[in-house]
Amino acid sequence: MAVEIMDKIVSLCKRRGFIFQSSEIYGGINACYDYGPLGVELKRNVKEQWWRAMVVENEDIVGLDAAILMHPRVWEASGHVAGFTDPLVDCRQCKQRFRQDEIDPKKWEKRQCPACGNANVLTDARQFNLMFKTHMGPVEEDATVVYLRPETAQGIYVNYKNVMDSSRKKIPFGIAQIGKAFRNEITPGNFIFRTREFEQMEMQYFVKPGTDEEVWREWKDRRMAWYKRIGIHPEKLRFRQHGPDELAHYAKAAMDVEYEYPIGWKELEGIHNRTDFDLSRHQQFSGKDLSYFDDATRERFIPYIIETSAGCDRTVLTCLIDAYEEQKLENDTRTVLHFDPKLAPVKAAVFPLVNRDGMPELARKIMDDLRGEFIAFYDDSGAVGRRYRRQDEAGTPFCVTVDSQTLQDETVTVRDRDSMNQDRVAIRGLVPELRKRIWGK
Amino acid sequence: MAVEIMDKIVSLCKRRGFIFQSSEIYGGINACYDYGPLGVELKRNVKEQWWRAMVVENEDIVGLDAAILMHPRVWEASGHVAGFTDPLVDCRQCKQRFRQDEIDPKKWEKRQCPACGNANVLTDARQFNLMFKTHMGPVEEDATVVYLRPETAQGIYVNYKNVMDSSRKKIPFGIAQIGKAFRNEITPGNFIFRTREFEQMEMQYFVKPGTDEEVWREWKDRRMAWYKRIGIHPEKLRFRQHGPDELAHYAKAAMDVEYEYPIGWKELEGIHNRTDFDLSRHQQFSGKDLSYFDDATRERFIPYIIETSAGCDRTVLTCLIDAYEEQKLENDTRTVLHFDPKLAPVKAAVFPLVNRDGMPELARKIMDDLRGEFIAFYDDSGAVGRRYRRQDEAGTPFCVTVDSQTLQDETVTVRDRDSMNQDRVAIRGLVPELRKRIWGK
Repeated sequence: MAVEIMDKIVSLCKRRGFIFQSSEIYGGINACYDYGPLGVELKRNVKEQWWRAMVVENEDIVGLDAAILMHPRVWEASGHVAGFTDPLVDCRQCKQRFRQDEIDPKKWEKRQCPACGNANVLTDARQFNLMFKTHMGPVEEDATVVYLRPETAQGIYVNYKNVMDSSRKKIPFGIAQIGKAFRNEITPGNFIFRTREFEQMEMQYFVKPGTDEEVWREWKDRRMAWYKRIGIHPEKLRFRQHGPDELAHYAKAAMDVEYEYPIGWKELEGIHNRTDFDLSRHQQFSGKDLSYFDDATRERFIPYIIETSAGCDRTVLTCLIDAYEEQKLENDTRTVLHFDPKLAPVKAAVFPLVNRDGMPELARKIMDDLRGEFIAFYDDSGAVGRRYRRQDEAGTPFCVTVDSQTLQDETVTVRDRDSMNQDRVAIRGLVPELRKRIWGK
Repeated sequence: MAVEIMDKIVSLCKRRGFIFQSSEIYGGINACYDYGPLGVELKRNVKEQWWRAMVVENEDIVGLDAAILMHPRVWEASGHVAGFTDPLVDCRQCKQRFRQDEIDPKKWEKRQCPACGNANVLTDARQFNLMFKTHMGPVEEDATVVYLRPETAQGIYVNYKNVMDSSRKKIPFGIAQIGKAFRNEITPGNFIFRTREFEQMEMQYFVKPGTDEEVWREWKDRRMAWYKRIGIHPEKLRFRQHGPDELAHYAKAAMDVEYEYPIGWKELEGIHNRTDFDLSRHQQFSGKDLSYFDDATRERFIPYIIETSAGCDRTVLTCLIDAYEEQKLENDTRTVLHFDPKLAPVKAAVFPLVNRDGMPELARKIMDDLRGEFIAFYDDSGAVGRRYRRQDEAGTPFCVTVDSQTLQDETVTVRDRDSMNQDRVAIRGLVPELRKRIWGK
């Protein structure tokens, strides 16, 4: 059942142009995906909602967009060169490769391969670094080794002084960033849930030590509220606090926002109290003073950092799964994506009921008005019922139909995706009406 | 003079938080830059304007966001593995490295080093591939070699069938994409003009052979118009058509949009007629049929491609340079960035004239209204004149001041950055008024 729904979503994503396997005509490349015409709009809308909630609406948070390629010392300071590894095990028999920590402990005890089933065939575990490595500069031998960043957070830490000085921010304040990161995962999978190339939406909030616990509690609630605000079903969301044995060495507290995927409850976002670990390490490795002087209290300290770290692709997947419904109607079944209108890739479709009597011309005119505002789709082929179904499956919240009454009173029908109700709306009030239904203003 | 202006812009960019050297606390990493709080907003606005002009307003263009990591065969088909090289020359004396094609021909004849000046010291030219290379999969020896894409275009070509089938587009239609690309340039430079990590804004338009020349002419004019639409001075823009000797092997025609930078006229965007080269190559290398069947004329053909390829970072640099002015006033000089309000990172600043008499409370209330719409900045420190100057330098188009008259009639002054005129506007009409001044609606 769970697998079945994932398969249906993967198939819908390809068929309707949300997400394609990368380089598919060449047989694909493992765990990399391309966003098609609908997917790119959905992803843009998710990012826009995040940026709005984090940067635009908050005076105490500013944005940043750091490069993917950074100085290699950054990853020594962060601990990634030494410790960002997975334990890798080979089967001498069938040549398959596994993460040791994902092998059933009983099988591991017998060195029994999870794939071919033989005992005494697994090698010892070797530590494998998950960072992609490349060389910058003209000749490989003597060029600098650089890494594709495995997380966006470090780009924020190394810029914190520059950002603070240039934007006249005082602690507490936050820096938000959306950007790509890369991990050479041994076992990626579950479609875009875990990929080797992915996009993060991270905010690092710099606070005075002692206020960190309260700020952490506040941010975990604010981040949970955001998922509800973009329309995710509340009953599919929960918190899961990490126990002391699970905490990363730099973390004082960690809370996951989890979503109930078809594959079970999984992390959607992590809210972490990272203490002064990151800035202390960068101070030590760079030799630059990264402390903060508080004018009011005349105190000097290394700020603590509260991090909210979300996966953008994972949020897109969550929106798709959460919006997906195969709805039984009286004489029919429809597949519908109940996206929040703010997130919907196409905001409205425009149909002439029939392709005559001046209806196409009027529909085209309406289409021109809408395209100045948002993405709209024109469809004049097939029965209107079929056109509605096509838009339901794409998650389009509103369908505007020009019919014979339009020719008389200059009104159109606006059909709501979820209720399937139709209202008549005057053409000249259509844009403000749709704007209101989409953005609430 | 030219260098002086570039230096001033680089310095302003750092001081005000537009652009920082990447990993600066570690001494920086060559030719990589980070966008700070103002820079990230400027870049977001540039991208938003491009997406709007290309995708939102055009029914015949859809978006795409392909992964940076692609199947390595893509780069064999595209010709990059064999031919995306620069000729590299070493000086045996001073150990510096050059692009042979950038050495003065007379010096090259004498093998005379452009740096140390010695003759007979330069090696023969070796071909150096500009693609960054990495390995995907758990062990370097047997993992797949993959490249960081050196251009975004190929992501569009390999997805063209998937996009067309899923979005029900017919030729002619276009696919637009914004994304990062990487080139291991031997001689990057001029700030963000040429960097090793950069962002492209590309649109590939698929047409029937025979219509390609007309479509190419149309797109070169539309792209030129876009730069004017985002406020670039028309007299600083020109076309430059490539001569037959300059054309890439796949191109039938190429036109650059050039801008007059402090370092001279340079390419800002290229509009190329790429013929059927790309799809033919991918058809050949993938073994997949990439031809198109035209239902109306019953013809089958490989589409020709008209490409519009712009650098996003370069456009940001152009906006900064083009907006920059040191303006002599009667008793003063001000540095001002005359951004089009649509592009300005901060749309409005809010000032209480003095920090008493209820002015801060009112200003705060206005600030809350504005932050629901766009990025606004609150400033209550120093004389109002100084606060204006700070916003001029950040390119903020409007400053809203709460003064003693506000307390009586609920109006504020709105000061225009360019004219420095002040109008009184009623607080309750402020948001619509600013919205109109920024977006014209």
